[in-house]
Amino acid sequence: MSGHVLALSGGVGGAKLVHGLSLALAPGELTAVVNTGDDFRHLGLAVCPDIDSVVYALAGLSDPVRGWGRASETWTFMAALKSVGGEDWFQLGDGDLAMHVQRTRLLIQGCTLTEATGHICRALGLQVQVLPMSDDTVRTRVLTDEGWLDFQDYFVRRQCRPAVREFEFAGAAQARAQPEVLAALRRPDLRAVVICPSNPFVSVEPILAVPGMREVMERCAAPVVAVTPIIGGKAVKGPVAKMMRELGLEVNGESVARRYAGLIDAFVVDEGDARTPVDAVARGGLAMSVVRAPTLMTDRADRVRLAGAVLAVADALSGFK
Amino acid sequence: MSGHVLALSGGVGGAKLVHGLSLALAPGELTAVVNTGDDFRHLGLAVCPDIDSVVYALAGLSDPVRGWGRASETWTFMAALKSVGGEDWFQLGDGDLAMHVQRTRLLIQGCTLTEATGHICRALGLQVQVLPMSDDTVRTRVLTDEGWLDFQDYFVRRQCRPAVREFEFAGAAQARAQPEVLAALRRPDLRAVVICPSNPFVSVEPILAVPGMREVMERCAAPVVAVTPIIGGKAVKGPVAKMMRELGLEVNGESVARRYAGLIDAFVVDEGDARTPVDAVARGGLAMSVVRAPTLMTDRADRVRLAGAVLAVADALSGFK
Repeated sequence: MSGHVLALSGGVGGAKLVHGLSLALAPGELTAVVNTGDDFRHLGLAVCPDIDSVVYALAGLSDPVRGWGRASETWTFMAALKSVGGEDWFQLGDGDLAMHVQRTRLLIQGCTLTEATGHICRALGLQVQVLPMSDDTVRTRVLTDEGWLDFQDYFVRRQCRPAVREFEFAGAAQARAQPEVLAALRRPDLRAVVICPSNPFVSVEPILAVPGMREVMERCAAPVVAVTPIIGGKAVKGPVAKMMRELGLEVNGESVARRYAGLIDAFVVDEGDARTPVDAVARGGLAMSVVRAPTLMTDRADRVRLAGAVLAVADALSGFK
Repeated sequence: MSGHVLALSGGVGGAKLVHGLSLALAPGELTAVVNTGDDFRHLGLAVCPDIDSVVYALAGLSDPVRGWGRASETWTFMAALKSVGGEDWFQLGDGDLAMHVQRTRLLIQGCTLTEATGHICRALGLQVQVLPMSDDTVRTRVLTDEGWLDFQDYFVRRQCRPAVREFEFAGAAQARAQPEVLAALRRPDLRAVVICPSNPFVSVEPILAVPGMREVMERCAAPVVAVTPIIGGKAVKGPVAKMMRELGLEVNGESVARRYAGLIDAFVVDEGDARTPVDAVARGGLAMSVVRAPTLMTDRADRVRLAGAVLAVADALSGFK
């Protein structure tokens, strides 16, 4: 089958599946819609961690060992910044810094975040359309047992230590969904919408909080398939399992599937996830198909395989939505 | 002898003598007044090449081989910036970038350039007071056979290729001299004012163009001693010899001494500079002592030796001004 695919993604885990989809699809067939709730201003620079994770994955620049940032990165800037009394709680690699500097220049020159991202992607030769969920500012904030924290303050400075109670996406109610995202969701040749294995609370739900996003997704022509970020009761990376425990949720795919109920047509659980029997989701009254697949992506082949499995699920459901 | 020493400096050559003076003097005895005419905004950052050269020399961070910037520098940022379509005509090392980012942060937070420089120097543990010539914006511009060029455009982008005809220091007439510089020049315990072996046209004269600087220097209590940037008819580094030829001047110390006539009490020519006989300057009617010294500074010992020679000249003239 051919047709256009739209993928919703946060950072690292999501970026891997976006990369897999880009390899499984023809050039121009993929649009990635990326969370900007983690974005922040740091050292005067516009830092967009999730956009950069997606761009690095697509450009083959991601560091496979560290799990974030660029491969062959150097850290001279951070060491020098510390030596002159600068803020060093947020690690910026020397190469990574170039993304923030260039994006900030483009924004100051009057580009939207979408245009700035497009410039950078074209310079890197990417054939995937990478779109921020909105050009307006949306900022994820976390209510913890120590009060409200800005996302990077919670995530990096406090290393996710405070227990979470609630999230808010400041600015989301006033934000306009990126028009090209809505246009992609309304395409008659839309083949699938994929919710990547990203953190539902702080990566996917900020995207869904942008007015119109959820509604247009619900009415789109193609099946919506989400992939679990939980494997065997654990998060592959990041605080999602810790957050689920703190929120009183079972740490399994079913809890994730519940958050997407009413929006998705199929949910992909990991083939080894004994804690999420396929029929449990059905028993829970969630109107969605549940499919098992190998969801752990450790290399390029895993990414392509999972992308293929997700597309197969969407294609099987096509016409039955 | 003890007392306070004020040194006027541009970048690399001047910075070496500032370093030598700092080693020859007790902590707290040295104030460096640094040219800011080369400063510019680049990639949204406040870049001050001469201040940084002085700071790097004092902190032992200068690259001894390249002759500018930091030792053990890495260049990951520039390569990554180029790959995403950024401006790459002005080389910024990864560590060097930290100076510009931190300075820009401090300026945005409301610091003056003097305060920002002070913060950075204290963080690096420097015991020399490093002062910009002014907290107001002064920008060196160069009239060339291709028209007026901004300094960095001439110096870096065009690599000093266009022939120079004239210089202007835009903003100088409106700039206020740094008050601590004027205060240092008025100290009763002032031992010497040293004009370092910097380019007279684009490093020293911008400092002298700030209203009040020349007048207060002329009336200061201490001898003013300048060191030639020309050795054996050549510049040790930079375009000074090329500029002298293009301006129709003889390439020797005498031509430099003439530019400082009326301001300085002594001029130090290189011991090997046969083109500037000591008595030629006297014959030229320039009211100044002329002294030979080894002015080439290739290592730390050279810097200390030249600093000692300059201080000896000043001390010998002390009371005869």
